[in-house]
Amino acid sequence: MDITKFVELSLGRWRSQRSAHHLAFAHFEQVISTIDIVALDPNDPDAIALCKSNNIDPATAVAPFRMSWEGESDWDENEASQGTTVLVPIPDADNPAQGKLLRDRGYAETIPSIGQYCISENGTFTLSTEYDRATAEEKIWFATPNLRLRVSLIKTSAGSGVVTASFSSEIRSLSGQ
Amino acid sequence: MDITKFVELSLGRWRSQRSAHHLAFAHFEQVISTIDIVALDPNDPDAIALCKSNNIDPATAVAPFRMSWEGESDWDENEASQGTTVLVPIPDADNPAQGKLLRDRGYAETIPSIGQYCISENGTFTLSTEYDRATAEEKIWFATPNLRLRVSLIKTSAGSGVVTASFSSEIRSLSGQ
Repeated sequence: MDITKFVELSLGRWRSQRSAHHLAFAHFEQVISTIDIVALDPNDPDAIALCKSNNIDPATAVAPFRMSWEGESDWDENEASQGTTVLVPIPDADNPAQGKLLRDRGYAETIPSIGQYCISENGTFTLSTEYDRATAEEKIWFATPNLRLRVSLIKTSAGSGVVTASFSSEIRSLSGQ
Repeated sequence: MDITKFVELSLGRWRSQRSAHHLAFAHFEQVISTIDIVALDPNDPDAIALCKSNNIDPATAVAPFRMSWEGESDWDENEASQGTTVLVPIPDADNPAQGKLLRDRGYAETIPSIGQYCISENGTFTLSTEYDRATAEEKIWFATPNLRLRVSLIKTSAGSGVVTASFSSEIRSLSGQ
């Protein structure tokens, strides 16, 4: 599987159940959210601007997309978390199963990021992103075409310890609502 | 990695945080438990009996072990769940990265089971077990030597739908307590 196929499988509206495990305190956090993943045109101005801000030739980008989410955490029921981000894959020239993923804002921090991805033979997408103070490692795979699973680890920037491990079950909203 | 190495890495006491996602109702369940994984002698009577009850030559078994757990679910705080099970790997003669896993009782049901396992190049252990009314699929991998992660899916026996997806973060108890 290459990134174009992976993005294609991911397009649509998803209802997500996420559990975060804050490991030091054995604390659980639960989040229900709606995620929309929409394909962007290769000439989308936001996608091109993201390439240029990273000094990357927009012609090397494939399957750019926009992800938006709106969720509710049990940590603060009054705070609805929502956001939107543009993501642009840049496959390596010599190996289409891996490459860079540009993002105009990240999950863990609200700043732009560049992650390194690879896709294994069995179709698991792995993404590693280094931030100033933390490293995020994410695995995404499809249990069925309508069930996407995601495990995310937040590590200290030294990479030694995992601070948070979280798991999302994302079910496709077949109604399209 | 082969099964002997995987079992070796798994030995010890683990503090587990588990989140179960009951997908149809977007319901969350949380469990905290302690898991002990102990190596058994190849001549352990329980391991040999388990092979014989499955008509398998005990000489083909490697790295038998016992797993015990004691946990508390937020579904019923008064019900402490505990149990113990003997597990015996039987690697395929022609491919040591895969084989059968015999169990004298399963997770999903309290009956003996035979699962099919394989270990990928990156060290992910995958186990598929068919029960009368359900199929369980489990992935286990190490984020660090002291953090074991586990994703389990319970599917209907037809294999079409995933009923429950759960995620465990298992931290090694370095104190040995």
